[in-house]
Amino acid sequence: MTRAGSPQAIKIADYLFTRIRQLGIKSIFGVPGDYNLRLLDFVEPSGFHWIGNCNELNAAYAADGYARINGLSALITTYGVGELSAINGIAGAFAEKAGVIHIVGTPAREIQNSRARVHHTLADGDYRHFATMASHVTRAQTNILDPMTAPSRIDWVLQQALIYSQPVYIEIPEDMVDVAISASSLSIPISVPEVPLPIDEPVEEVLGRIYSAQRPIILVDGECRSMGILDQVDELVQKTWWPTWTTVFGKGLVNEELPNVYGHYSGRLGSKEWQTYFDTADLVIVLGPHYTDTNTYNFSTVPRDEVSISFSKNAVQIRGETFRDIPDDFLSRLVQTIDKARLNPVQGPSSLSFLNHELSINHEEPLVQKTFYSFVNSIFRENDLILTETGTAAHGGRQFKLPTKSRLFAPATWLSIGYMLPATLGAAVAHCEKNRNGGTRAILFIGDGSLQMSVQEISTIIHQHLNVIIFVINNAGYTIERAIHGRKQIYNDIAPWRHSQALGFFGVNEECSRNSFSARTYGELGIVLHDENIMNGTGVRLIEVFMGREDVEGALLGLMQSQIAKE
Amino acid sequence: MTRAGSPQAIKIADYLFTRIRQLGIKSIFGVPGDYNLRLLDFVEPSGFHWIGNCNELNAAYAADGYARINGLSALITTYGVGELSAINGIAGAFAEKAGVIHIVGTPAREIQNSRARVHHTLADGDYRHFATMASHVTRAQTNILDPMTAPSRIDWVLQQALIYSQPVYIEIPEDMVDVAISASSLSIPISVPEVPLPIDEPVEEVLGRIYSAQRPIILVDGECRSMGILDQVDELVQKTWWPTWTTVFGKGLVNEELPNVYGHYSGRLGSKEWQTYFDTADLVIVLGPHYTDTNTYNFSTVPRDEVSISFSKNAVQIRGETFRDIPDDFLSRLVQTIDKARLNPVQGPSSLSFLNHELSINHEEPLVQKTFYSFVNSIFRENDLILTETGTAAHGGRQFKLPTKSRLFAPATWLSIGYMLPATLGAAVAHCEKNRNGGTRAILFIGDGSLQMSVQEISTIIHQHLNVIIFVINNAGYTIERAIHGRKQIYNDIAPWRHSQALGFFGVNEECSRNSFSARTYGELGIVLHDENIMNGTGVRLIEVFMGREDVEGALLGLMQSQIAKE
Repeated sequence: MTRAGSPQAIKIADYLFTRIRQLGIKSIFGVPGDYNLRLLDFVEPSGFHWIGNCNELNAAYAADGYARINGLSALITTYGVGELSAINGIAGAFAEKAGVIHIVGTPAREIQNSRARVHHTLADGDYRHFATMASHVTRAQTNILDPMTAPSRIDWVLQQALIYSQPVYIEIPEDMVDVAISASSLSIPISVPEVPLPIDEPVEEVLGRIYSAQRPIILVDGECRSMGILDQVDELVQKTWWPTWTTVFGKGLVNEELPNVYGHYSGRLGSKEWQTYFDTADLVIVLGPHYTDTNTYNFSTVPRDEVSISFSKNAVQIRGETFRDIPDDFLSRLVQTIDKARLNPVQGPSSLSFLNHELSINHEEPLVQKTFYSFVNSIFRENDLILTETGTAAHGGRQFKLPTKSRLFAPATWLSIGYMLPATLGAAVAHCEKNRNGGTRAILFIGDGSLQMSVQEISTIIHQHLNVIIFVINNAGYTIERAIHGRKQIYNDIAPWRHSQALGFFGVNEECSRNSFSARTYGELGIVLHDENIMNGTGVRLIEVFMGREDVEGALLGLMQSQIAKE
Repeated sequence: MTRAGSPQAIKIADYLFTRIRQLGIKSIFGVPGDYNLRLLDFVEPSGFHWIGNCNELNAAYAADGYARINGLSALITTYGVGELSAINGIAGAFAEKAGVIHIVGTPAREIQNSRARVHHTLADGDYRHFATMASHVTRAQTNILDPMTAPSRIDWVLQQALIYSQPVYIEIPEDMVDVAISASSLSIPISVPEVPLPIDEPVEEVLGRIYSAQRPIILVDGECRSMGILDQVDELVQKTWWPTWTTVFGKGLVNEELPNVYGHYSGRLGSKEWQTYFDTADLVIVLGPHYTDTNTYNFSTVPRDEVSISFSKNAVQIRGETFRDIPDDFLSRLVQTIDKARLNPVQGPSSLSFLNHELSINHEEPLVQKTFYSFVNSIFRENDLILTETGTAAHGGRQFKLPTKSRLFAPATWLSIGYMLPATLGAAVAHCEKNRNGGTRAILFIGDGSLQMSVQEISTIIHQHLNVIIFVINNAGYTIERAIHGRKQIYNDIAPWRHSQALGFFGVNEECSRNSFSARTYGELGIVLHDENIMNGTGVRLIEVFMGREDVEGALLGLMQSQIAKE
C-alpha cells in the first residue's frame, strides 16, 4: 500500500482498491481510456489481476459473470464513451442482481468545473449527463470530489453493492487518483449491517405452517444467490426432504442430485403429475422469488398467494401479507429452529427418469433441439460451470440434469443476447480463483446469432488460459425470434461465419485449430464428445453443432406452432 | 403502402416509414428483438434495404456513418437491451452531429400500463428509465401512444433530426405498429422551416470586413457538414480564392486540390510560415466551428475573437458578438452578394509540397507512422471514402492529401474507439446509394486495439458486398494511450490476433483468403498496393501493416517524448 505523508494517509486509489480487495475481489475487468489511465496504474500494484476486455460492454458482462460466482466484482471504464458502452451490461446486472462495482475515470475537477469542451463529452459543457443516466441502472452512485468525504462515500457505495448485490457507480476524476485521504476507517471491514428482528417477526407463524403442511413444496428461485442464502436453502432442502423444484432462474442453485430435488418446474409444459402436486400443494416455501414473465412461463408458475411463504430480500410474505425489515439471518434461524420430528410425512410425485439419449438415438440422425441437451449432458462433471445463452440454448438447458456443485447460468429477465460469452469469461475467472485454479471448467451453449454480438471475447478467454468448451448452435440466425414472430423474415437471418476458424483467428497458438470440432449428427457428436481434447483437454475448445433454422422445443415449440397455424 | 380502412387512413408503421423514405433514407440498420419484430415486418415492404448488424452498438455506429453521408439515417432496436447497447453510438452522433433516427420497439401499451415485470425491463415496473436515459443524448423524443397525435409527434421529431442533424428517439409500442392514423399530412414533406432574417442582420458588417481584409483566412470546421452548407463553403472558397485551411473535423469537407486550400491547420506543430500567417491574419471566416480540445490542438488553433467571423447553426459571431436566429441561407446569400472586384489581392503563404514517399523511401525500411500515411496516399482516387479511426490512424490521416470529391471520416470529439469500422459500413452503403453503386470504394485505417471493439462488423460489410480496403495497424495495443500515459503498462496491451484470418472467419467465400495481405516494410507494402486485388479488386480486402508499439508522430510524438522524459 502506497502511503503519502502521515501513517494515517493513503492515496484515494489505494484506499478504493484496498476496500475492493477486502471485499474478496481478485481480478478487475475493463478497458483503458484517456481518463482512467492513472487509476489503472494502481490496479496491479494493489495485487489485482487486470483483465483487459475487447470492449466495455463485454467487460461489463464479464464483471457480471464474475460477481455471480464471487459475490462482487469490479469494472473500470473511461468517462462517456467507455461507461456508456458498458451501460447495457450494468442494467442487466441491476435487473438480475449482480454486484458490479463500476468505477469510471473522469476528467480532472478543474476541467469539469470550467465546463471545458473536451473529448468524450457531448461538447455542451455539461459533465453530469452520464452519471444521471447511470443512476437509473445502479443501486448507488458517488462522485469522489472531496478528500474529506471520500472514505465515507466510497465505503457507503461499496456497502450498497454488498447489501443488495446490484451495481454501483463511482466516479474518480483524474486528479483525485493520488490525493491523500484518511486511512483510519480501513481497519473496519465493510459489512452488511445487522438489524434486529422486528417485534412482530413471523417465525411462529411460519413454523406453524411448516408443521401443519401435508403437501409442501420448496421452490428455489434465482434471488437466493444475490440474497446470499444458498447454504440455508441447501440446509432447508436436506432437513425437510420436501419435494423441491427450481424456477428457470433458480436452476443450478440447489443440488439436483438430491433425491427430493426434481429439477425445474415448467407448469403445464412439464409432467402432469408434478403439475397436479403443485396445484394441490398446501404450502409453497419460495426462496428468493423473481417473478418476471420469462422466469415464470408468463406468470403461470407463480404459486398462489394463499399457500405461499416467500423469502425475499428484507421481507417475508405469508399468504399475501408482507412482513418487512426481516434481517438476512431470519431464514438461517428458522431452519435451525425446525424440529424434524414435527414435520408430517410427505409423499412427493415421482421423479422423471433422466433419459440418456446417448444410448438410444440412431447415430445417423441429425442433431435436434429436443434431444441434443440430454445427449450432451453426459459430459458434465462435478463442479462444472454450465452456461446457456438466451435463445434455444437457454430453453434447452432447462432439461439438464446438473451434477453436484455445478452452477448453471441461464438468462432470467434481462435477456440481452451477447451476455453469456463474456459472462463465461468472468464466471470462469472467479470459479478458478475460488478453486485455486484446480481443474475447473466452463461449458457454454450459445446460438450463432448471440455469438455475433460479443464473439471477440473468445480472445480474452484464450488469453486468460481458461478451460472452456463452447458449443455454437449453428441454426442460421435468430431462431428464438423466428418462434416469436417472423419465422421466414430476413431480419431474423444473420451473415454466415466459418465458426471452425474462430479459435485460429482469436488465438495465436497453432493448437487452436486442433480444438475446433463440428457435428451434424448424433454419431458425429458422440465421436467429438469422446475426443481426448474434449474429455481431458484444456484451453478453449469450440464445437459447432448444426440444427434446423426452425427447430425449437419446449416453450418455444408452442410459439412456433401457433405462428405456423396463423400463416 | 398498406392502407387500413378509409383512403385517409394508414398504419402507424407505414406512416413512419413513408416519412423516412421521403427524407431520403434508403437503408435501415438494426437488430431484431422481441419488441420490434412486428415493426420490422414493415421495413422491406416499405422499400427499404434492411441491414441487420451483429450488435446494436455497431448498428448505431453504422447509422451514424450513413447519416454523415446521407444527411439522415434510421436505426431500429428493441426495448431495454437493444437501445442501451446502442446508446454510446447515439451519444457520439449527438456530440458530432449525425441525424440518426433511433426507433425503439417497446412492449404493448397494456403491458406497460399494468407495470408487468416482463423481460428487457429492470423488473421494477417502471418503463420510463430508458427513454429518460435517451433524452440526454438525443435532440428530441416521442413515445407513440395515441393515434390522434401520432402523425404530428412523428413529424415533429423527424423535423428536429432534419434541422439539427442530431439523433432523435421514437418509441413504438408493439400494439401501435398497425394502428390506423390519418395519412393526410403525408402530402406535405417534412422540411426545415424558413425563418426571416432578423432586423439587425449583420450582412453589411460582414461584407465590410470581407472587403477590408488584407490577410484573410477561411477556416472550414466540421459542422459545415451538419449545417448543410458544404456547397456554399465551396462557393466561398472558389469565389474569394482566399487561403483556406480546415480543422481536424473539417478535413475532407473542402476540395484539397484547389490551389488555395492548404490542408489542415495544426498550429505550432505545422509549418512556421502558416502559423505566422494565422497569427497575423486580420480576418478569419470560420465555417461550422466545433471547438473541442481534440479538434483544436487543445484550443491552441481557435482563432482570436477579434478577427473572427464564425458561421454556426442559427448564429453568426462577429468579433465575439453573437447575432442569433440567423437563417440557414444567410451564408448562401452572403456568398452571392460578394463583389469579387472589391476584394483585396491576397498573398497567402506557400503550400507545402506533398511528399510522395513511395519514390523516396528505402524499400528495406520498416513501416513507421511518420511516412506510412503519405506513402499509402498514392492509392487514393477521386470519390473515395477514407476513414481513420481514433488513435494513431486518425493522427496519421491528417497528413493525407485528399483527392477531389473524396470524403474523410476522422474522429473529432466523441472518440469512441470501435466506431470507425461500423461507420465504414454505414458510410459505404450511403456512398453506394448516392453513386448508384457505381464503383465506389471505402478505405479504412484502424489500429489493432480499436479493431477488437467491433471487429464482427466486417462480416456485415462482406455480406453487403461493399468495396472496402481495411488497413489494420498492428502495433500490439493501444499505442495512443501509451503516448498519453502508461507507455509500458500491461493495461495498454491487447490479446494478439491473427488478422490474416479475419476475412476467412467472417466471410464464407474462399476468395476472402486471397484478399488478405500484410506488410512490414515499405518494399512489401509497395508490392501489396500494386496488387491487382488492391488496385482494381472488389469486396473486402484487409492489409495488416506492422508498426512499433511506441511509434507515433505529430501531436502524439510530443506526448510520448514528455512521458519518456518523466520516467
